This record gives sequence, structure tokens and C-alpha cells, in this order.
Amino acid sequence: MIHDLYETISRRRDVRGQFTGAPVPGDVLDRILMAAHEAPSVGLSQPWDFILVRDRELRQTFHRHVHTERETFAATLDGDAARRFARIKIDGILESTLSVVVTYDAARGGPAVLGRHAIADAGLYSVCLAIQNLWLAATAEGLGVGWVSFYREDFLRGLLAIPGSVRPVAWLCLGPVSHLEEVPDLERHGWRRRRPLQLALHADRWGG
Amino acid sequence: MIHDLYETISRRRDVRGQFTGAPVPGDVLDRILMAAHEAPSVGLSQPWDFILVRDRELRQTFHRHVHTERETFAATLDGDAARRFARIKIDGILESTLSVVVTYDAARGGPAVLGRHAIADAGLYSVCLAIQNLWLAATAEGLGVGWVSFYREDFLRGLLAIPGSVRPVAWLCLGPVSHLEEVPDLERHGWRRRRPLQLALHADRWGG
Repeated sequence: MIHDLYETISRRRDVRGQFTGAPVPGDVLDRILMAAHEAPSVGLSQPWDFILVRDRELRQTFHRHVHTERETFAATLDGDAARRFARIKIDGILESTLSVVVTYDAARGGPAVLGRHAIADAGLYSVCLAIQNLWLAATAEGLGVGWVSFYREDFLRGLLAIPGSVRPVAWLCLGPVSHLEEVPDLERHGWRRRRPLQLALHADRWGG
Repeated sequence: MIHDLYETISRRRDVRGQFTGAPVPGDVLDRILMAAHEAPSVGLSQPWDFILVRDRELRQTFHRHVHTERETFAATLDGDAARRFARIKIDGILESTLSVVVTYDAARGGPAVLGRHAIADAGLYSVCLAIQNLWLAATAEGLGVGWVSFYREDFLRGLLAIPGSVRPVAWLCLGPVSHLEEVPDLERHGWRRRRPLQLALHADRWGG
């Protein structure tokens, strides 16, 4: 049992290029969303929502926006980084089966959310825990997930009629894939390498 | 394999009262930390660090701070909520085997972090994904995790000599437990109930 969890954690990839567009059975999608919904949340506030985006036109509009933002980022890079970035695919919005937009409602469970008075972002953290549950569940089900972050929150709010008080946290592409890559895309394309765990560990104090 | 992941996701609890203080074998701790370290991160920035806090005096000092913050929160509650809150244990800092403080270094992988130019918090999100991997791995290993959030970030920075540019995201108590509760503490104590998943689902647009 333990081995399987570790295998799922290791196999999980941030997918851009391997979506097939094949259907996701309803019961599989239900299990994945329930896994997300069973995440821990500060003060049991469960401040997440999931917008399932299947509409083709909405996805095309978002895709165009993402590619405008890609150009904005590309313009900040120097020659070498720009050349590496040019080879990297940043989304699978149109090829994946559907998208799941995950949002954060800070008012949920308020006004006194247990555990949030000192750390305003604690509710935002909860939403991310739900996203990781979703991602691992999808991986275990043999699906791929790709988190797109080349967008402006206000654009996405407008596109999906998300209230001003609710914050979009992630646009996740979801669906069957031909395969999951062994090595993360960004490492394969020489963008960045994985860091040894030992460099991230400290004993009792920073640097200890 | 899939069933086991879902079982781990469902069994996972935010532990306060069930820590035994028994040792955590080194290889188990290594696997749990590696699971966290294998999380996805924006631009492969891997912006997390893990401070393993075993020192008794540091934990006692933090514990006193947490209980001061508890009083601050309690003072904001009206009679009914205050009575419910009085029964709720908020931390297992002294009873658990060790604590893991997880931090966020926004400068890691910079200045041009792929995928973060439009969403400044994307790096913070990555750290939370690592925390959920850690939490599930610990659960699968039969250990408990308790996320303490009754603290001020600056206090924790000072206590563990964390640089001003690095943000503490979580203080996690970790260790063997007598058992994991079936029902989350806050639900058992009548603080809040779990929300039906259906209320969190939308089709194509908010409210759809």
C-alpha cells in the first residue's frame, strides 16, 4: 500500500503534450473530485470550488489569452533562456478532455475561521492541498493533469463569471494521456534541474 | 492500487491529541521527506525547505507562543463559539515526536520563474503541494501529522533564524499516533460540518 502511494507520487507529471482527448468516465471524474474535496482545510472551511470547463469556445478564448501571456513572459528572457523557452509547450488546454478551475472563497466558514486569524493565506493553502489530492488521484487513475499558470486572475474571473470575492487558484487540464514522461518537461528541455533533497533539509534552525 | 490511494486520502486526519511521542525510524522519515520533495513546482523552482525541529526548548517556546495566539483568537468569539472552541485542542507540539517547518523561498529559481510572471503566489502554491505529499506519505506510513497555524510568521522566523526573504508556510507536528479519528476533530466538536461535494461543483461558469 505504501509503495503504491510513493509510486503515484513519483510518476505524477505536469502534462502539456500527451493528452489524447479521450473521454473521462463519469465515475472516475467523481472519484477524483471527491479526493480533492477530502483535503484538509483550515478550520474545516473547505473554501474550494471546482468549475468543470468543457465548453469549446471558453477553452479557445482562454487558450488565446494564455498565449498572449506567453509572449509577455518570453519578452523578459535573454537570448539563451528565450531559445530554451521557445521549445517548451506550456499548456494542453485544447487537446485535453476537460479543464477544472479550482477557486478560493475566503468568506466560506467566516467570519471567525479557526486557525486563520494569524495567517490570512491559510485558506489559500487549503485549496492547494485539494489540488494535490486531485492530481495524485488522477495519476493513480491513469490520467494526466497539467496546471496552466500563464493567465491573469481577472481575465479568468471575467471569462467564467467568478465573483470578485472568489479567487481563481488553478486552471488544470485533465484527461487521458498517451503516457507520462519519465523526466519532467522543464528538466528534459534544460530549463532547470531537480535539486537534491539534502540541500532542502535543516536541523532545528535555518542552515542547521 | 487506486483504492489504496483513496483510502489514504480518506483516513488522513489533522492530528492534535493522538501523538504517542514514539520514535520515527530514519528510513521512514527519509521516504516522507522525499515524497514532499517530489511535488510539482512552478517552473521546477522547488522553492521549499524543511526544518526538522527536535530541540525541546524550541518546541516549548513555540508552544507558549501558540497558546498566546489561541487566547487572541478566543477573545474574538461570542459565547457559543467560545464554549465550543474551549473544548478543542489546537496542537500536539510537545507530544509529537518532531516538527517539520516548511518554508517558501521566492528567490529560488529566479529571477524568471517559468509560470510565475502573472501569478506571484504560484511559488507559494507549490510549497503547499509538497505539504500534501508529506501528509499523505506520513498517513500511509501509519504516522500522524498536525498543521499548527496559531502563530505569527515573524515570531517563527525569529525562533528558527529563518531569513527575512523566506516565508514559513507551515509548522507540522509529526509522529506515531495511537489512532486516527474517524471524524475530523472540528466536526466531532460541533465547530463545522463537512460540505457536500455537489455544492462545490459548477459547469463551465460559476453557478453553472
